[in-house]
Amino acid sequence: MSLLVTGSIGIDSVETPHGKVENVLGGSAVYFSLAASLYTDVQMVGVVGEDFDMTQFDPLRDRRIDISGVERRAGSQTFRWQGKYQGAMNEAETVGVALNVLAERPAEIPAEYRDCQYVFLANTHPAAQAEFARQMSNSKLIVSDTMNLWIEHERAALLETLKLVHGLVLNEGEARMLTQESNLALAGRAILRMGPRFVVIKKGENGSLLVSNEGLFVAPAYPTTNTVDPTGCGDTFAGAMVGYLASQGQLDHATLRKGMARGSVVASFVIESFSIHALASVKKEQVEQRLRELVEISEIH
Amino acid sequence: MSLLVTGSIGIDSVETPHGKVENVLGGSAVYFSLAASLYTDVQMVGVVGEDFDMTQFDPLRDRRIDISGVERRAGSQTFRWQGKYQGAMNEAETVGVALNVLAERPAEIPAEYRDCQYVFLANTHPAAQAEFARQMSNSKLIVSDTMNLWIEHERAALLETLKLVHGLVLNEGEARMLTQESNLALAGRAILRMGPRFVVIKKGENGSLLVSNEGLFVAPAYPTTNTVDPTGCGDTFAGAMVGYLASQGQLDHATLRKGMARGSVVASFVIESFSIHALASVKKEQVEQRLRELVEISEIH
Repeated sequence: MSLLVTGSIGIDSVETPHGKVENVLGGSAVYFSLAASLYTDVQMVGVVGEDFDMTQFDPLRDRRIDISGVERRAGSQTFRWQGKYQGAMNEAETVGVALNVLAERPAEIPAEYRDCQYVFLANTHPAAQAEFARQMSNSKLIVSDTMNLWIEHERAALLETLKLVHGLVLNEGEARMLTQESNLALAGRAILRMGPRFVVIKKGENGSLLVSNEGLFVAPAYPTTNTVDPTGCGDTFAGAMVGYLASQGQLDHATLRKGMARGSVVASFVIESFSIHALASVKKEQVEQRLRELVEISEIH
Repeated sequence: MSLLVTGSIGIDSVETPHGKVENVLGGSAVYFSLAASLYTDVQMVGVVGEDFDMTQFDPLRDRRIDISGVERRAGSQTFRWQGKYQGAMNEAETVGVALNVLAERPAEIPAEYRDCQYVFLANTHPAAQAEFARQMSNSKLIVSDTMNLWIEHERAALLETLKLVHGLVLNEGEARMLTQESNLALAGRAILRMGPRFVVIKKGENGSLLVSNEGLFVAPAYPTTNTVDPTGCGDTFAGAMVGYLASQGQLDHATLRKGMARGSVVASFVIESFSIHALASVKKEQVEQRLRELVEISEIH
């Protein structure tokens, strides 16, 4: 089954304790698409400015990601993000951001994509996510992401959007902020009452937690020791997870769990390089190998 | 196999978002012993002051914990700790502390206990831990705990002690502080080079990580939603883990993993009440039930 993703496409400059890079490809839709393409066909929808060099999409084309839904908007500039990670690199510090084209009207979902059954709405204004969700007339699964900015300042719009999606992926700080509940299992249950059928709470190096009406699942992170740059980890996790769901055509609890385990593993590659380098070159066999290791190191006998 | 524990016995006053208690039984040796007694015979060594009401040990006697090694020292006062937890209750804020008898000469290990094969040295000055370790002439397993105070101010003594122990249990902040390594798997390996054959890094609600020369194991925490007071969780975790090891008489990687899973589960009961209330009343069948649940919610298929 093919999977449609809407999200940001950006030019990133990142500094970590392991080095720095300038003007490299980034953005939630890019990381998500590359990860999902390990499992299924991907249609990427987003918007870049006229400054964007379209050859930067070559690694996506190599993975047969359909980028015909990306608009290169004349007179606009591409989204740029400058970030820094320190210490354990658990949180990015935004040094500079230029929303540019992301502050204008959102991307258009091409008419021929609107019957896609699997949809991921990467983090953006919840009203734009709701508009995307309403355009998808044949959806079997819509998963969205969000962030602290919308939880704090656009709560009403976010709550409306949550009624339209089947799954929510967000990090632990966001889950606590959204629900005013510090216990993550309780926060997850509170989010289920807002609409989604399942919620996945990401905890970085501490893995992730699935909460659905069918129960809980705690997925460990794959413990890579080669942590170069965590940028894109969360979107990569979501990409592998939702990509796997689309590939299976099933949405039950057991399949969600399998998807999350794959998300953990694929995200562990992203962290091992700057930008999309490691993600774009990872082979399915490498993912399968780490998945076996993850099972081995987490199995309780 | 019987298990000897040295550690603090204290009178705690604790406030959490769920309430407060004053002058209740606490201390690392107490939590550890109660947890370990679910699996094996326990000999508790420690010192209290003349203010201590020995009937407070009744719940320990009920679990057949041998408290004949506890000294009630005339002219001294019992260790007292006053703490507060806020928000997600991940860290205790010490509101007041009176070391009292803990600032005097350490407890004496009775001669008849010194051939005990399994030993846990709860957190105290590393020189005192080393002295305890040297007194145990027949040890098969010595596990110790430590804290930021000693890592920062008694590093040389701590490094000496680490050469005498087989296992170290500490929390993630302490592991990072001890090794100057933010990646926990790498921090664990750095600790192995200091002496221990294995290290267990505790991550509170995020479970724990075992690092040994035989590999890694990531143990999830049991996701209780009834978090009343986390005091004693770490010592309870260690008590169930080391108690299980002593009960099995085996120290291989697989047994360590099983011990950690039991540590996770038993610790989940402690958090559900103030002081030792839940821990002292928990039944082995309840532990086994949660263990099955922990396997179920963490299994990757």
